[in-house]
Amino acid sequence: MTALFFTRALLPTGWAHDVRVTIADGRIAAVTPGTQPEPGDDRHAIAFPGLANLHSHAFQRGMAALAETAGPNDDDFWSWRETMYRFVLTLDPDQIEAIAAYAFAEMLESGFTTVGEFHYLHHQPDGAPYANRAELAERIAAAASASGIGLTLLPVFYAHGNFGDAPPSPRQARFLNDLDGFAALLDGCRRAVSGLDTAVVGVAPHSLRAAAQAEVAAVAALAPDGPIHIHAAEQVREVADCEAATGLRPVEFLLDRIGIDARWTLIHATHLTAGETRRLAASGAVAGLCPVTESNLGDGIFPAADYLGAGGRFGIGTDSNILISAPDELKAIEYIQRLKYRARNVLAPKGGSTGRRLFDGALAGGAQALGLGAVGIAPGARADLVTLQAGHPSLALAQGDGLLDAWIFAGARIDRVWRAGRQLVAGGVHRDRPALEARYRKALQPLA
Amino acid sequence: MTALFFTRALLPTGWAHDVRVTIADGRIAAVTPGTQPEPGDDRHAIAFPGLANLHSHAFQRGMAALAETAGPNDDDFWSWRETMYRFVLTLDPDQIEAIAAYAFAEMLESGFTTVGEFHYLHHQPDGAPYANRAELAERIAAAASASGIGLTLLPVFYAHGNFGDAPPSPRQARFLNDLDGFAALLDGCRRAVSGLDTAVVGVAPHSLRAAAQAEVAAVAALAPDGPIHIHAAEQVREVADCEAATGLRPVEFLLDRIGIDARWTLIHATHLTAGETRRLAASGAVAGLCPVTESNLGDGIFPAADYLGAGGRFGIGTDSNILISAPDELKAIEYIQRLKYRARNVLAPKGGSTGRRLFDGALAGGAQALGLGAVGIAPGARADLVTLQAGHPSLALAQGDGLLDAWIFAGARIDRVWRAGRQLVAGGVHRDRPALEARYRKALQPLA
Repeated sequence: MTALFFTRALLPTGWAHDVRVTIADGRIAAVTPGTQPEPGDDRHAIAFPGLANLHSHAFQRGMAALAETAGPNDDDFWSWRETMYRFVLTLDPDQIEAIAAYAFAEMLESGFTTVGEFHYLHHQPDGAPYANRAELAERIAAAASASGIGLTLLPVFYAHGNFGDAPPSPRQARFLNDLDGFAALLDGCRRAVSGLDTAVVGVAPHSLRAAAQAEVAAVAALAPDGPIHIHAAEQVREVADCEAATGLRPVEFLLDRIGIDARWTLIHATHLTAGETRRLAASGAVAGLCPVTESNLGDGIFPAADYLGAGGRFGIGTDSNILISAPDELKAIEYIQRLKYRARNVLAPKGGSTGRRLFDGALAGGAQALGLGAVGIAPGARADLVTLQAGHPSLALAQGDGLLDAWIFAGARIDRVWRAGRQLVAGGVHRDRPALEARYRKALQPLA
Repeated sequence: MTALFFTRALLPTGWAHDVRVTIADGRIAAVTPGTQPEPGDDRHAIAFPGLANLHSHAFQRGMAALAETAGPNDDDFWSWRETMYRFVLTLDPDQIEAIAAYAFAEMLESGFTTVGEFHYLHHQPDGAPYANRAELAERIAAAASASGIGLTLLPVFYAHGNFGDAPPSPRQARFLNDLDGFAALLDGCRRAVSGLDTAVVGVAPHSLRAAAQAEVAAVAALAPDGPIHIHAAEQVREVADCEAATGLRPVEFLLDRIGIDARWTLIHATHLTAGETRRLAASGAVAGLCPVTESNLGDGIFPAADYLGAGGRFGIGTDSNILISAPDELKAIEYIQRLKYRARNVLAPKGGSTGRRLFDGALAGGAQALGLGAVGIAPGARADLVTLQAGHPSLALAQGDGLLDAWIFAGARIDRVWRAGRQLVAGGVHRDRPALEARYRKALQPLA
C-alpha cells in the first residue's frame, strides 16, 4: 500500500484540499480529503488525473518536422502522406520499438498516462507478414512496457487504396490484411499485451477508404464491447470521394450504414454538416480530436462549439506526434474556435473555466474511447496521477480550475506522473529519458 | 575578445559548418566558416541568431491564464480588457519590475534576445504621475538590466477612450498623457535606458482609438528615424468604430491620413481588406504579429499568405505574455493559415523550408521594427546567439533548415542564449531563474 498526500487535488466532485490517496495493486484504494498526512506519505502540492492520448501512430514521431519543406507543387495532407509512406518503408522492428518507447515517454512527461496506439504498420516492407504476424504489435507492447505507459492497442484493418475497393498501392503493402489475416493478427495482439499489467485491445477499421462496408462491420464484430476506432472526415477530398462512391458523407455513412454508438471513436471527424454534428453528438461515440496534427496537416476546423453544445463526447490524440503535448492539444481545440468566432472562452460553460471544461471532457472521452473503465482520483480507478511544479510562476495567482488554465494556457509545468501507482516522471523528466533518448538516436542513425 | 565555435551555424548566406565567431564589445567581430576551433574556444553544436520580440506588455505576464473563465455574458477581447484593467490598478512599481524581469528572462529562454516593450502603464492608480514621470519606464529598464535582454522601449501616448476624442474611463487613468506630458515622459525614457548597454527608444501612439490624427502625427514626429509602433485593426469592432468615425478603416487611415513607411510597425493588423494587405506590404512597414495572444483574445486571422505573397514585412511579439514562446508564435502564423486554406507549407517558397521562411522573416522584420540595425551571425551585428540542445531526439534526422523546422514544429529545445556576447541561458534555463522566480512570486503574493 502506497500513500500520496496532495495539498490540492481535482476529485470527481471538484477541487479538494489536503487529500490523502492510498494505492493498492495499481488502483486507488481510498481518497480522503480534508485530512492530515501520515508519517511516510509521499507529499506533493497539486494533483489531477492523467489523461488518455486516444490516437497515436508512434512510429511517425521519427519523422517529426521532416515534411515542413514545400514541394514543387502545393502541399497538403496527401503530399505529406507520400513522405510518410517513404519513411514507413525504411523502418525495421527495432527502430519502430525504439521510436515508440521514446514517444511514449514523452507522452507520460506531458500528462498522458495511457496511449491508444492506432497500429497499422504490420508487415515487412514488401508486404510479407513477419514470421510472427504480430511482431510489430509485440514491439509496441514492449515500448509501452519500457516507458511504463498504459496501452490500448488498436490493430488496424486496411485492405484497399480508396473507396470502391480500389487496389492498394505498393507503398501501403505493410498495412494490408484480409479478414482472416486480421483475425489472426488480433489474436496475436491479445497475446502481445498479455504480459502488460494494464492493457486493452480494440479494433480499428482504418477508414472508409481502406475498409469496405462489410469489412467495417466484420471488424467491429470482433470487438463486441469496443473500443472500435476509425478515421473519418479528416480531409475534404475524402468527404467528396465518399459521397461520389456511396452517396453519403463519411460520418453519415457510419451513422446510417454501420450504426455507431458508445463503443466507437471517430478520429478527426473534422468535416461535419450541422446535421452530422448533432447526430454524432447524440450517438454516444467519441470524436477523437488531434488539433496539433490537424493543424500541421492542414485538415481543417472541427466544429467544436456546435458539437460540445450538442453534448458531444470528445478526447484528444497526438496522432502524428509532430509534437507530443497534452496542454497544446487542449489549448488548440479552444484557440481555433476563438479565431473562428472572434470570441473568448468559447467552450466554457457560463461562469466556468475553459481549461476545466476541456480537461473534464478529454478525461471522460479518452477513458471511454480507450476502454479504461473508471478514471479520476476516486476509489477503484487506476492510480494515474499528475502533479504540477507548485512553485512555477504561472501558478502564483491560480486557484481551483485556474490551475488547469495555467497548465493549458500559460505554461505551468508538470512535476510528477504516476501510472498505475508507479512514479515514472519527476521534475518533468521520465526516469529513463537518457536511455530512451540514446536508443532512439541510435535507432535512427542509419537513416541520417 | 571571446570566441565561439559552432559545428553548424545559420549565417546570412545560409547554413555553414565549423564556424568560428569572435566577439568584441558585444558585437560580432569576425565569422569564419569551414575552419578549426582554437584552444580556449567555447564550442557548441547548432547556432542561429536571437530573435526580436517586437511587442510585449510585460506586466500582463502577471495575469496569464487569469481570464480563462467565462463571464455571465459572451466573452471577447473587450471583456478580457476589463479584467486586464482591474489587474492594472493593483500593481505598484516593485511588482511591475519583478513581473517584467521574470517575463524578460522567459523571453531569453525562448530565443528572444531583444524585447520591444510597448509601455503604456505610466502613472499611479489614480492617474497622478509619479514624482519621477518615467518611474515605470525606469522599472522596465531595470528589469531589462536584471534579465540581460536587449530593450527597445516604446513609450505609449494614450489620450482618449475611443474614436472621436471620447473621454477615457477612470480605469485608463494610469495610461494618459497630453502631448507635453508625453514629451517629458519621452525625455525620461531616454534617461531611463541610458545606463543600458544596448537600448533604443521609439514612440507608440497607442491606437487610433486613443490618439487623434494630429496627435499620432505629433508623436511620430518625436521619433523622426523611428521606431514608431501603433496597434491597428486587432478587432472587428475597432474597424467598424474607425469607419464610423472617419470613413476609413484603421489601416486605410494610417496609409492615407498619416502616411506610414519603414519606420512604422502596425501591431496585429489582423483585419485587412485585399487592398489594405497589398498597400501595407508595399509601404515598407512591419506587421507585428502576435498570433498566440491573437488566438487567446479571439482577435481573428491575419491574412499571412496574401501579405507575405505581396512581399510584406513581419515580426513576432508575445504581446499579453499569456505564453512566452518564440517557436509557438512562428508556428501559429503558419498553422492558422494551414487550417484556413486546408493546405501545408503555405508560407514556404517552393522547395523551401517553412521554418526558415518564418525565421528569416521574423529576424529581419523584428530588427527593423525595433531599430536594431544589423542582425544575424555576421560581422558588426550584435552578438545575439542561440544554440539548440544537439542531442534532442527531434534533431536526429534534421539537417540545415530542418533544424529550424524541428525547433519550431517538433519541440527541439534551446540550450544556450547569448545577448550582446553575454551568455544568459544554459541548458534552456536563465542563469538567474531561481532568483527572478522568487522575486516574481513574492511580488504577486499580496494579490493571491
